Amino acid sequence: MKITGTFLDEISHDIPHQNWGAKEWRRDFEHMKAIGIDTVILIRSGYRRFITYPSAYLIKEQQCYHPPVDLVELFLQLADELDMQFYFGLYDSGKYWDSGDMQHEIDSNRFVIDEVWKNYGHHKSFRGWYLSMEISRKTRGATTAFRTLGLQCKAVSNGLPTLISPWIDGKKAVMAASAVITKEDAVSLKAHEQEWSEIFAGIQGAVDAVAFQDGHIDYHELDDFFAVNKKMADHFGLQCWTNAESFDRDMPIKFLPIKFEKLRLKLEAARRAGYDKAITFEFSHFMSPQSAYLQAGHLYNRYKEYLEEIKGAE
Amino acid sequence: MKITGTFLDEISHDIPHQNWGAKEWRRDFEHMKAIGIDTVILIRSGYRRFITYPSAYLIKEQQCYHPPVDLVELFLQLADELDMQFYFGLYDSGKYWDSGDMQHEIDSNRFVIDEVWKNYGHHKSFRGWYLSMEISRKTRGATTAFRTLGLQCKAVSNGLPTLISPWIDGKKAVMAASAVITKEDAVSLKAHEQEWSEIFAGIQGAVDAVAFQDGHIDYHELDDFFAVNKKMADHFGLQCWTNAESFDRDMPIKFLPIKFEKLRLKLEAARRAGYDKAITFEFSHFMSPQSAYLQAGHLYNRYKEYLEEIKGAE
Amino acid sequence: MKITGTFLDEISHDIPHQNWGAKEWRRDFEHMKAIGIDTVILIRSGYRRFITYPSAYLIKEQQCYHPPVDLVELFLQLADELDMQFYFGLYDSGKYWDSGDMQHEIDSNRFVIDEVWKNYGHHKSFRGWYLSMEISRKTRGATTAFRTLGLQCKAVSNGLPTLISPWIDGKKAVMAASAVITKEDAVSLKAHEQEWSEIFAGIQGAVDAVAFQDGHIDYHELDDFFAVNKKMADHFGLQCWTNAESFDRDMPIKFLPIKFEKLRLKLEAARRAGYDKAITFEFSHFMSPQSAYLQAGHLYNRYKEYLEEIKGAE
Repeated sequence: MKITGTFLDEISHDIPHQNWGAKEWRRDFEHMKAIGIDTVILIRSGYRRFITYPSAYLIKEQQCYHPPVDLVELFLQLADELDMQFYFGLYDSGKYWDSGDMQHEIDSNRFVIDEVWKNYGHHKSFRGWYLSMEISRKTRGATTAFRTLGLQCKAVSNGLPTLISPWIDGKKAVMAASAVITKEDAVSLKAHEQEWSEIFAGIQGAVDAVAFQDGHIDYHELDDFFAVNKKMADHFGLQCWTNAESFDRDMPIKFLPIKFEKLRLKLEAARRAGYDKAITFEFSHFMSPQSAYLQAGHLYNRYKEYLEEIKGAE
Repeated sequence: MKITGTFLDEISHDIPHQNWGAKEWRRDFEHMKAIGIDTVILIRSGYRRFITYPSAYLIKEQQCYHPPVDLVELFLQLADELDMQFYFGLYDSGKYWDSGDMQHEIDSNRFVIDEVWKNYGHHKSFRGWYLSMEISRKTRGATTAFRTLGLQCKAVSNGLPTLISPWIDGKKAVMAASAVITKEDAVSLKAHEQEWSEIFAGIQGAVDAVAFQDGHIDYHELDDFFAVNKKMADHFGLQCWTNAESFDRDMPIKFLPIKFEKLRLKLEAARRAGYDKAITFEFSHFMSPQSAYLQAGHLYNRYKEYLEEIKGAE
Repeated sequence: MKITGTFLDEISHDIPHQNWGAKEWRRDFEHMKAIGIDTVILIRSGYRRFITYPSAYLIKEQQCYHPPVDLVELFLQLADELDMQFYFGLYDSGKYWDSGDMQHEIDSNRFVIDEVWKNYGHHKSFRGWYLSMEISRKTRGATTAFRTLGLQCKAVSNGLPTLISPWIDGKKAVMAASAVITKEDAVSLKAHEQEWSEIFAGIQGAVDAVAFQDGHIDYHELDDFFAVNKKMADHFGLQCWTNAESFDRDMPIKFLPIKFEKLRLKLEAARRAGYDKAITFEFSHFMSPQSAYLQAGHLYNRYKEYLEEIKGAE
């Protein structure tokens, strides 16, 4: 199973920034392309007051800071040139995390979606939307909100596809700022299926693809959860992608690049489950030859060897 | 607002050591110089049993370890050569942190100050003192102790200037070893002004400059706090510097280099408040092209672009 | 005191993986050799489901994952070529950590030991066994289990030596995943001696060398604890090695390379106590010029200078 997409982690919640300029970003897109990545997904266009493009709306109405560079334009130009698809991640005001109320996200993104489509929709690489608020079993109440956002994206853009990337509430579903790496009350396979069937029913038609994060469950649980995910996705007419996390959730330093063997186990499980596409969170910190984490460059090399290996096996 | 000074983080509380030798330090001073840094401030000359110079007093009387190299001499020679100003940071026995009693710091530093001035005072770059015990609102009782230490430094050195770098007790004022990154009981602007006016009144005449650490409050609070700091400093005749932290307090890894946009926001706020000088904690880990954290080299490049930008705007 | 051995941290509990291939491992063994390391010790051959060699037994009976590469073969070949000694670290099922019951470790390792000796025992560099379960004062009940494992290793291999590397239950003996770096209830020197005399009596004849980890006590406690360790080892006929940890336990990031001065203090204390050999945990992350942690390369250089210094002093 090849990784053909990656998130772009601007703006980050919890991964320290690399301070790259245009030159480094160009080189990184080239590194992505070289291993077959054809899709880049902006993780979010803004978080609280920090934003990725000079949004008149967000600066004026949400007191966001004027960004030093227009990353959306930069990423779209690079994707245009290199013939990649760009998915735009919605704005995250942070208010939902604080209050549990999605109304603010719907209201502010109504403006963001229009503004972004107007300013950047002409780029040939603008090919989809990423609903950036991370839905989970605990936020089933937010299902209709996601539906609203998805439909809004599609309405302005002649039906461009929409993507979500939720997490499985497994034993490793703990906060990055927490001192622990596992918890006791992991979700059961049965509850997962029940709850997500409800959610999928609610977002059907508004969301085209679901890419569950693959890092919250144990490696021997992958097959069972992936099979259920694929079955549900098929049933509700969603594409089933995997978000193959390339950072390691099992270590006290949160987070550094994953051990290749673990990434391979997850990709192989997605292949067995017949998943449609694999993307990763994310290339630039955890798999790039120019990452500040030098382990990432070695992961890139191990992954390239794996590509040779599966090519030989075909 | 240009950064014209940096701390030298030897001995460190909580930032892992880079294990540089004389060659790396020389190169780092040259990197500093290249972006306009003219002031280096030794964060402390010793902490508990680890010390930066072979102090006869500290080794004999405080059971400190004989250091493998005389960093004070090394730093002063480099500062002499490169025409920079060196501030000497006092010894921190650690006993104050444990007991809240400053008497031990006063007693031990009486000897340290004499010894250091006798051994290193001839260097032309020896241009000031840094009172390394980090005072805050919770330690107002220590005001007279700081007064004593400041006057002592000035007395032996023909009135060389003294510097302090306290923290604002904002929402990010949590211990580095703590798992969290924010707290609930942040100080109000009013309490900050009240309490620091008291402290400034107490240290007036013994301390020449105050460089508040800028990383404990939120970015949108910068203007208010900076304005109050400047007003108080002016009122009590202190120079008002900013200690622009170049590491990121918002991330679970404590600590890696800051996102350039955040550093710029803080420097711009200091400029608007009319601050006298900007220093940083600290160049060698978080902004240096040869830092073990490669994000630091990129921050260096972004900062150099910013220097061009503000030069163009002049 | 020269470091002449290092652990190989595959499979890791808590140190993020570097994703090296055969090329990087060869280069690392050469870097080790260049500073006088003649012994490499596999920290464990497997942990839970991850293993270092394609063990028919562990894959079939313990549901372990088939590893992407045979690291045991790779390490033995490199050790053969470079004339180094290889110690094989036993399998750790993780069940002991969960339940406190050693029976599972004994049962599974009975097969592992036979399998490994059969498959790899012909290598001239296969020169010892490392009993990888980390014994401590809290696990005195496990003494007979360790005895059993040690005797089993020796029986199949014509008496090849066995090694353990326990920790002193000092103030820094906290879990890596914990947010703190010290604890209150450190062991006293007297209790340490009493309890370890009991353990040494129990493993006498089955274990040849003990390498206490040197990082859990404070630097000024080294001489006292090391003297007691040496006295006990001599009394019970064990070789007394030191496991000089090359990572820093005093920092919030768990873990990065240690400050050279600290490593030197620990090595000097081992020399004063008349220890037989110094090994480190571990070279490849914390002392190697090609480590992802660039501080490690500088530590390598500082350590090489130290070798020159002690050579000059001889």
